Amino acid sequence: MPEGPTLAELGETELIRRLGAFAPQGQFADDAALLDPALFGPNDRGAHPLVVNTDVLVEDIHFSEATMGSSDVGWRAAAANLSDLAAMGCLSVVGITVGLVAPGHTPWHWVEGAYGGMAELLGAHGGVLLGGDCSGGRQRLLAITALGRLTSGPHGPIRRGDGRPGDQLVSTGAHGLSRLGLALLRGDAVPALPEASKERAIGAHRRPRPRFDAVAAVRDTRPAGLPWRVAGCDSSDGLAAAAACLAVASGCTALLAHADLPLPAELEGLAAAEDWCLWGGEDFELVLALEPAWAEALVEQLAGARRVGQLVEPQPEGPLAWTDGGGAIRPGAAAFSHFS
Amino acid sequence: MPEGPTLAELGETELIRRLGAFAPQGQFADDAALLDPALFGPNDRGAHPLVVNTDVLVEDIHFSEATMGSSDVGWRAAAANLSDLAAMGCLSVVGITVGLVAPGHTPWHWVEGAYGGMAELLGAHGGVLLGGDCSGGRQRLLAITALGRLTSGPHGPIRRGDGRPGDQLVSTGAHGLSRLGLALLRGDAVPALPEASKERAIGAHRRPRPRFDAVAAVRDTRPAGLPWRVAGCDSSDGLAAAAACLAVASGCTALLAHADLPLPAELEGLAAAEDWCLWGGEDFELVLALEPAWAEALVEQLAGARRVGQLVEPQPEGPLAWTDGGGAIRPGAAAFSHFS
Repeated sequence: MPEGPTLAELGETELIRRLGAFAPQGQFADDAALLDPALFGPNDRGAHPLVVNTDVLVEDIHFSEATMGSSDVGWRAAAANLSDLAAMGCLSVVGITVGLVAPGHTPWHWVEGAYGGMAELLGAHGGVLLGGDCSGGRQRLLAITALGRLTSGPHGPIRRGDGRPGDQLVSTGAHGLSRLGLALLRGDAVPALPEASKERAIGAHRRPRPRFDAVAAVRDTRPAGLPWRVAGCDSSDGLAAAAACLAVASGCTALLAHADLPLPAELEGLAAAEDWCLWGGEDFELVLALEPAWAEALVEQLAGARRVGQLVEPQPEGPLAWTDGGGAIRPGAAAFSHFS
Repeated sequence: MPEGPTLAELGETELIRRLGAFAPQGQFADDAALLDPALFGPNDRGAHPLVVNTDVLVEDIHFSEATMGSSDVGWRAAAANLSDLAAMGCLSVVGITVGLVAPGHTPWHWVEGAYGGMAELLGAHGGVLLGGDCSGGRQRLLAITALGRLTSGPHGPIRRGDGRPGDQLVSTGAHGLSRLGLALLRGDAVPALPEASKERAIGAHRRPRPRFDAVAAVRDTRPAGLPWRVAGCDSSDGLAAAAACLAVASGCTALLAHADLPLPAELEGLAAAEDWCLWGGEDFELVLALEPAWAEALVEQLAGARRVGQLVEPQPEGPLAWTDGGGAIRPGAAAFSHFS
């Protein structure tokens, strides 16, 4: 039977593109799905748009018992989901449903820890456990769907495709610390670091925080008279992937500069610093494209936020290029694939 | 380290009870989660309540390549989810998100078939593919979250715990046909059957239908003057499990009668008929508890619907007992566990 390519041969980007053909046009364009309240009937025109996001976290791919306990697994799984709600401009969380898959020999203790970690995250950022399902299976796995709401008023959603040439790219924080934390947890060879730096890196990896505070700051810093237009996504797959994703969706090229890379102090002097900053992933910051005055106001108000580049008309180098030498960055080459 | 019991030792019922402790009280009481529109803010009081349901379907537990192609897997996975929306009283579906897990060697052809089957089901019953996630993993798996809405007006939700002594139990259709279909697909020894019977049984197993039409009939047949009070759940785990679930949630005993078991004609003369009718599962009918006049009107209007028993004050036999001899039914004894 001619079965055609396997998922590993297709690659994740092409797989998602093909799956998008089963959804309404544009439905797969953002970090999460935006549900227009008009969907809910004529009585609901005053209702808040809902945002829905599903993430699956699989043992040995997204987490490992070697690097973290189950309460960290639960926290991270829920945080990854809520980060996508923040990336859509949500400030408040309705809740999550959790599909738990685990082999029958899994200790209850592990599951209790995972749900405890999710509950801790929800306690810190809002929302409740709404429901879910559980099943046996060969591998532990959490499939989480998060529901958030966009408050009505002058604030709209954050969309990947709303960037324009001339926008400044702002990162809400440093990138690469989570990757350093992973290296430390794995016992990879890493130059000697102060204990406090190690703790911060491991904390960044185990207990990332969805940046709802950054969404609030984006709202607060909108210059008078500017309409709502904010492009953005979260940096779960790394800074370079986030910038590329905004650039592609907005039909622009993202210009980065080595001098402006948001390196955390903990990575100073590490040979892998730039690589981890660009491709490490799982820092769960927001990468935003804003009009220059707005970007400036945001960087001024939000501690840790930095200008990392700009969007320009599409360039022959592709969606990502350097302004200060170094050539184009080719996303995909170094990007992580969940199927390989 | 004292890790306590494993999930297999706990069993599914106790696991779900323990997980419910991480959710608001009563949140795990129904087939799906009901979201009060008040959650969405003061503007949303006129909005329709949303219903959210998550189901995980795992290869070799919930489906197998030996018994069905991937388009049937996709159809069934989505149908199982939408059946829970119908069991809550929804008439319309907003859409689903899909978490796909599959090993990298999985042919694209398989995934295309599964999403095609889901799209077919949505095409027939409403809703769209809203989004999702994909990842590698050792085993194929679909984690689906479905969103439905309850229309406003005089109709409320259907809740498991709304039954009262004196209610009649109505099944919206026969039970056991899906189990017969599974036996045929597996090649189990089954007495000779006409071709048409085999096809109906296999069709029932591969392409179950969520009973939104039955929800509409429940609404249509409410006797004048009766307030909205409908208890119900779907029979994904079998007729006995559904009746027990209503009885426990409503603080009653469900009395069944051998003479009233909703056996499909295709099972006539089979030694396993009663067992499959009670415990086979996956017929995805609704089992409802209604005031006698309402039950009578429903059975009269809805083709295939049958009275299967009644709710009475709790009896010493437990939540399930026979009215015509045969002693108590002990749910759990023959019930399927996803962790064993």
